[in-house]
Order: sequence, then C-alpha cells, then structure tokens
Amino acid sequence: MAEKRTILVTNDDGITSNGIAALVEVASEFGEVVVVAPNSAQSGVGHAITMRRPLRLRPVKQFGKVAAYSCDGTPVDCVKLAVDKVLLHHKPVLCVSGINHGSNASINVIYSGTMSAAMEAAIEGINSVGFSSLNYKHNADMDTAQLVARKVIKNVLQNGLPKHQLLNVNIPNVKPEHLAGIKVCKQAKGLWKEEFEERNDPFNRPYYWLTGKFVCEDKDRNTDIWALNHNYASIVPVQFDLTEYEGIKFINENWNIDVKS
Amino acid sequence: MAEKRTILVTNDDGITSNGIAALVEVASEFGEVVVVAPNSAQSGVGHAITMRRPLRLRPVKQFGKVAAYSCDGTPVDCVKLAVDKVLLHHKPVLCVSGINHGSNASINVIYSGTMSAAMEAAIEGINSVGFSSLNYKHNADMDTAQLVARKVIKNVLQNGLPKHQLLNVNIPNVKPEHLAGIKVCKQAKGLWKEEFEERNDPFNRPYYWLTGKFVCEDKDRNTDIWALNHNYASIVPVQFDLTEYEGIKFINENWNIDVKS
Repeated sequence: MAEKRTILVTNDDGITSNGIAALVEVASEFGEVVVVAPNSAQSGVGHAITMRRPLRLRPVKQFGKVAAYSCDGTPVDCVKLAVDKVLLHHKPVLCVSGINHGSNASINVIYSGTMSAAMEAAIEGINSVGFSSLNYKHNADMDTAQLVARKVIKNVLQNGLPKHQLLNVNIPNVKPEHLAGIKVCKQAKGLWKEEFEERNDPFNRPYYWLTGKFVCEDKDRNTDIWALNHNYASIVPVQFDLTEYEGIKFINENWNIDVKS
Repeated sequence: MAEKRTILVTNDDGITSNGIAALVEVASEFGEVVVVAPNSAQSGVGHAITMRRPLRLRPVKQFGKVAAYSCDGTPVDCVKLAVDKVLLHHKPVLCVSGINHGSNASINVIYSGTMSAAMEAAIEGINSVGFSSLNYKHNADMDTAQLVARKVIKNVLQNGLPKHQLLNVNIPNVKPEHLAGIKVCKQAKGLWKEEFEERNDPFNRPYYWLTGKFVCEDKDRNTDIWALNHNYASIVPVQFDLTEYEGIKFINENWNIDVKS
C-alpha cells in the first residue's frame, strides 16, 4: 500500500469481544488500524456521552502489533477520545464499529452503541460504518460478517460515501455459502414492546427488569428486516439530520403559533 | 374538560429540577398529568436503556396532587416504565419532556436525554414534544418557556401532529416580551469540537474530562440556530426513520456489492 491509511475501529461489546477481533482482522487488510474501544460491554447505551466523571484511556496488547486502547466510557466517548487524544485530529480514512453481537436493524439503530459510535465519527466528517451480526452468541462465528465487512470497506474506500451519512450493515446468521447477497435497504418500521418483569427484593419491594419483544409489521420488501429474513446482508444509509421536512409544512399549514394571538 | 386526557411528563434533568415543575404546571392546564422522571440528572445519556440491572420506581409527592414517580434509570427507561407499569398501556394523548435546562438545538438532539425520552414515546405511537430552554441555570426563569410550551401543547392537542414524528422545541433565553415569535425550522448542521482536558491523578496517571465547543457554520435562515439567535423559539419536527434515502441510490449506482464477484 503506497499511502498509509488509518482506520479507526471501535465497538460497544467491549475490546475483548469476538466481533471486534474479527473487524480488526478485516480492517488491517486495508490500512493501519487503531482501536479505541470500551473496556466492558456497553450495549443499549445509545449516543450517551460521559460528562460527570473523567475518562481513562489504557494502551492494551489485545491485537498484537495493532495500536489499541481501552476506555472506561461509552462507544461515543471512545470515538471522541480517539479523534482528540489518540489520532490528534489526523483524520482516519474510515471508522468501523462492531462487529456487534446482535442485530441493529430497524429501530435498534436508535438504541445501539455500535451505531452511535459510527454516527459520532460521521458527525465529525469521517466515513463510517457500523457492522452487526445476527449471531448473538459470545463466541459467534464471524466468517460471513467478515466477508460482508471486507466487501463494504473495499467499496467505501474505492467508491466513497456521500457526506453527512454513515452505513448500518447487518449480517444474517448464515454460513458464507448461504448468504443470498448484500442489499441496500431502508430502515424497517418496527418497535420494541416492552414487558418489564416485576420481582420483589428480600424486603418485599418491587424492582423491574427490562425485557421486550421486537414487533415489525412493516412488510415492505425494501427494508432491512426483509433482507435479513431472506438471508441477505442489509446496508441502510443513515443520516443524522433528524429533521422531518414534511412536518415543517404540516405545522405551518395547520397550526396557529402566533405568540401575540 | 369533558374527556379525561392523560399527559405523560418526563425529563432528563431529574424530577427535582425547576424545568419539570414548570412543564407539569403548563401540562396540567390541558389534562391529567402523570410524571415519571429520573431521580437524578441524566444529561447526555442519549437514547440509553438499562439492561444490566433492574429498575426501581418510587411514588413521590413532588407535585402535590399530580401522580408522580421517580425512577433510577435513564429518560428512555422512564418512558418505557410509564407506558408499561404506570399507565398500563392506556395511551396518553401526549408526552412532554423537559423543560431542559440548556439547548437541544442542532446536533444536540442526538446526545439529548430530553429528546430521547420524547422520541421513545413517539416510537410507541404517542404524540410527543421535547422542550429545552437556553437558560442553563439551575434556577432558570421558565416564563418564556412556559408561554411557548402552552402554545405548542394547545396546537398538538387541537391540530395534531403527523405520525412517526415528534417535535424538538427550543426557547431562547429572553423575557416573554422580547420573544420574537415561534418558528418552524430544520436542524442546523453543527457539531461539538471536543477538547478533552487532560489531568494527572495523585499517582501521575492521566485522566480526561470531556469539554467541547459547539461549532455551527450553517448560515441558513431556516435553521433552529438562526431562529434562536434571533430570539425566536424554534420547532423542529424530528423523525426516527434514520434512512438517508438518497444514499440508497448512490450505493446502488456506484458500488459493486455482488458477493460472488
């Protein structure tokens, strides 16, 4: 490789997870990898940042010769620290987050630490992709996910990604030979129906465990859920301008917001 | 009021904050208020949910006759618990979150616990609005924010809100008589340039405090930042379908994602 290209790797399952090791392996084929990842699992933290306590950054030998740091903050903290204190604002050509153990398709993108880390990088103007495997297991086989990650990273570096967006890539839990393909999709309309499990402590006071069931009634064939259900890997281009432009028109036409009236 | 309408109130500054008291006051003019809010300040938690420990819910007398509960989770946890365990899935006519002490305009919507709580309600199909005052002070004067909240709540209840969206309302730090009006806007393109402050602990090991400077080079007059800088309250309609539809076209036209090639 003529030019030395830095690729930042992070995740939300923690620096010791199987998924990040698989991603470091693939990313290393394309450039010089720098890892900054949480020291413990951070699933479900969303776009949380740590403001009420300071953060620690510790060099680790997790990945042989690859420069790697564990951080006691959230995935978004990791990206912020990587940019400011590890890369010293030398912009990486790419940030990849994952490979998450579990789906971030549909509405999961909102709750996902994996995707929030990728989004933070995108906000800072870095090409960015989050990868998630539908194999939830701790010792998940990442062969298919690696195949997809290799394909996606190659394309981002060769063919680019428009500004102000990142990619949410999910990989079905199938062997490489059963992967139907890679499909560019929209986010399926789905949600979690929460069902807290109520228990009583030894002093007879209630406490609640968050559980839940994912419900998706979106039958559109262009969604990530459809793709994954049919053994395709899904790529959803994701934006961080949350404006619903149609809503501006609706309010201007239907509301009275004159403060003098 | 002929019909008994339930309004759910939450926030991210915690149940004892000035802002939530101001919002409970206004919401009570429109329906029967139920409060479920964090027992401590949760700024910057984004759309975090609590999965690794159980949650507690405690009835409190914070707001006189208004039913109120404090929760030891995140703002999103509060909404989930409210829907499942407090309201028992009787759908409120509205969820309002705030009034946040500090701006959630522009990219702050991504990091905001206030807006994540509102978004969670919207995902569950509840009309939902987050309110934030640009007065950061703990004892902020909420007169102007209350005036705007009253106007917005009235309009949501009378004139509705399209499905799959919520509102991000920010209120400038001015007296009511100096409020220029209420403007429906788009999210300004801005970001936080992080500058971690590095310190050494007594054992000479470094630690990092997240600080940062908000930078907005978006000069468009239709943004929330422009409105707030000109003493308007801003309303940004917000979506939770993060798909960047243009990106689908870009990838399909410019990438090679054939897994067999």
